[in-house]
Amino acid sequence: MTVQSKFEKLGVDAAPGQEVRLGAKGGTWMRGEVLSGRPVDFSHGDVDAHEPTPGAFDAFEAGVRTGGAQAYTEYRGAMAIREGLAERLAGFTGASVDARDGLIVTPGTQGALFLAVAATVARGDKVAIVQPDYFANRKLVEFFEGEMMPVQMHYNSTEDGAGLDLNELEAVFRNGAKVFLFSNPNNPAGVVYSSGEIARIAALASRYDATVIVDQLYSRLRYEGVAYTHLRAQNIAADNVVTIMGPSKTESLSGYRLGVAFGAPAIIERMEKLQAIVSLRAAGYSQAVLTTWFAEPEGWMETRIAAHQRIRDDLVQSFRKIEGCDVRVPGAGSYLFPQLPKLSISPRDFVTALREQAAVTVTPGTEFSPHTPRSVRLNFSQDHAASVEAVRRLAELVERYRA
Amino acid sequence: MTVQSKFEKLGVDAAPGQEVRLGAKGGTWMRGEVLSGRPVDFSHGDVDAHEPTPGAFDAFEAGVRTGGAQAYTEYRGAMAIREGLAERLAGFTGASVDARDGLIVTPGTQGALFLAVAATVARGDKVAIVQPDYFANRKLVEFFEGEMMPVQMHYNSTEDGAGLDLNELEAVFRNGAKVFLFSNPNNPAGVVYSSGEIARIAALASRYDATVIVDQLYSRLRYEGVAYTHLRAQNIAADNVVTIMGPSKTESLSGYRLGVAFGAPAIIERMEKLQAIVSLRAAGYSQAVLTTWFAEPEGWMETRIAAHQRIRDDLVQSFRKIEGCDVRVPGAGSYLFPQLPKLSISPRDFVTALREQAAVTVTPGTEFSPHTPRSVRLNFSQDHAASVEAVRRLAELVERYRA
Repeated sequence: MTVQSKFEKLGVDAAPGQEVRLGAKGGTWMRGEVLSGRPVDFSHGDVDAHEPTPGAFDAFEAGVRTGGAQAYTEYRGAMAIREGLAERLAGFTGASVDARDGLIVTPGTQGALFLAVAATVARGDKVAIVQPDYFANRKLVEFFEGEMMPVQMHYNSTEDGAGLDLNELEAVFRNGAKVFLFSNPNNPAGVVYSSGEIARIAALASRYDATVIVDQLYSRLRYEGVAYTHLRAQNIAADNVVTIMGPSKTESLSGYRLGVAFGAPAIIERMEKLQAIVSLRAAGYSQAVLTTWFAEPEGWMETRIAAHQRIRDDLVQSFRKIEGCDVRVPGAGSYLFPQLPKLSISPRDFVTALREQAAVTVTPGTEFSPHTPRSVRLNFSQDHAASVEAVRRLAELVERYRA
Repeated sequence: MTVQSKFEKLGVDAAPGQEVRLGAKGGTWMRGEVLSGRPVDFSHGDVDAHEPTPGAFDAFEAGVRTGGAQAYTEYRGAMAIREGLAERLAGFTGASVDARDGLIVTPGTQGALFLAVAATVARGDKVAIVQPDYFANRKLVEFFEGEMMPVQMHYNSTEDGAGLDLNELEAVFRNGAKVFLFSNPNNPAGVVYSSGEIARIAALASRYDATVIVDQLYSRLRYEGVAYTHLRAQNIAADNVVTIMGPSKTESLSGYRLGVAFGAPAIIERMEKLQAIVSLRAAGYSQAVLTTWFAEPEGWMETRIAAHQRIRDDLVQSFRKIEGCDVRVPGAGSYLFPQLPKLSISPRDFVTALREQAAVTVTPGTEFSPHTPRSVRLNFSQDHAASVEAVRRLAELVERYRA
């Protein structure tokens, strides 16, 4: 594969956050007037509406004051910070974490995902990928020239769990997939895998000796009544699991670019070798911010979750009022993935119209699966009132362009 | 290539800064006592001895205060910051920089190097690499399964320029190399390419339509009487050059992880596409620190250069007193690359003895070229007195182990 063809596949135009580079795309097909209202960018969370955890900046400042020892850490991150993290992550996930050999600090969870896929997937390797799931998962497999084996998640036809097609997952393992990469819950629909689904994933990975990379970025932002099962604490060999998390979302620390991967030491070691030539390390001073993670003031997380649950409930209600719109209530995270009714314009054009006529930015469903063209993803970690008003404008445009 | 074999080649044990993971490696072959003295880690600069540029932390704090707009920038970095940078980088390098399409902010210059090589080298592509040069250049080519075509730099047998073997470079282009990656001056010997060498590189790249990636990380730290030629301002098509710089070294801002690549828009675009799945962006708040870059207080850079020149001169003198030791005076940067006399133990063992018996950490010459086993690299951006004392201990160990 030439470098040109490799990069032609690696589209970024519709990626969340890149809309600014698109410029005006509308045209004569647009109907009606521009709707006025405060712009809302649902492509990512609004860290001004939901501020970074208290103490984060102070920890950064302390890191700067520490000086050289904090600026130049091991490529996998400063040992003292890894030690504290290992203990707190073990407490959270229910299985021990090896601070020395089983944990790496990365530039965001994106950094962890990139390194984890690079460390497990070579050209031609078969990789099981959920549809729909985080949009970069597929791109990572393609970049390393792995073969993507899709596994469907029927999130809209189940009330219990994510709706992963476990028979399809087994078939894919039987057909040679050696790696399974999935998000729980930060898939676009915000669904949480049930304990039964996680147990089955553990059993299948063990039977077929597959490596499972599980992206648990949003696993702290869980709503009332939702149980969460950590794969790494199930009956699965520790060498077969890498868990990825980070403080960019729930904790609004994205501006510091921090993530972690923990689990199988052999994979973590490869990830560090690669990090040495990718970016050396997560920004040294930023690493110090991780001392505040899982150490937030009492009640802070509860308050944050409650605020998001209220936004979730209001937006779900708004979408359900749109005739022919299907939306599942997310059990965790801050993503909504409604399927819109049939429209007279293409989904891509509707996303453009939304942006240009309603000042509402969403991510097209095709970024997450080829089978969800009528869906759009919203990150509802936004100002509450502004997001309700934005979805009202979205509903108005749906009527304007309804088939 | 399996993922295992790919990562076996990607060694990191002897990489600068990773010595902490080695543990004690000494043995009964060691002679004599441990020498006392303040430990000096020459594997990287000491940002406590040479502090970050004034105002850097304040700019970071302002970035945090800006909030969401600074946390979530375009993947290639915030436009307003790119605009300021483009103007100042154009002034420094003597050729215009396109802020919108021809510049990307990356997590360190390492991040820029990784993306630039990924964006230009596919499996089997031939890449010209200088020996010796920055240790990661070779590893990057290997990781992307390119074919490395070595070009020798006879830095010790010339007084003028770097001593690059230009005939060999032409031969390598003639044999199909489509990319040439080199550092000026942050090669281990700190030599600066002459205007004649740069003109010849430009001419050859044009004739053979090759892409040149030039890493100019240290190009601001130039000593008295040294002229510097920017390749991008020479007679070479702008689409054939990518220039890489960053504020991690001279400016001691490594803890913020910042770098930039600028030049050929088609390559910068690919780099951004890849950055979207590698780490999304350079840490958003850190990007704000770039507003201080090339905008340091008057006289600050001159003071910094003078301090380094004094250390350089003292260390060169110390090395020249060691019988049989060859060292060239670096024209820029903070690297020394002395070739030590013949020893009775292997170079690798000597590096271990230095660390364990003299508390002096250096990087083995084999990291930079297979042809420089007797050399060691020192980053002399250190406390002046401590580094002189450390080289005194090094000299004592040379005598202890002399063949």
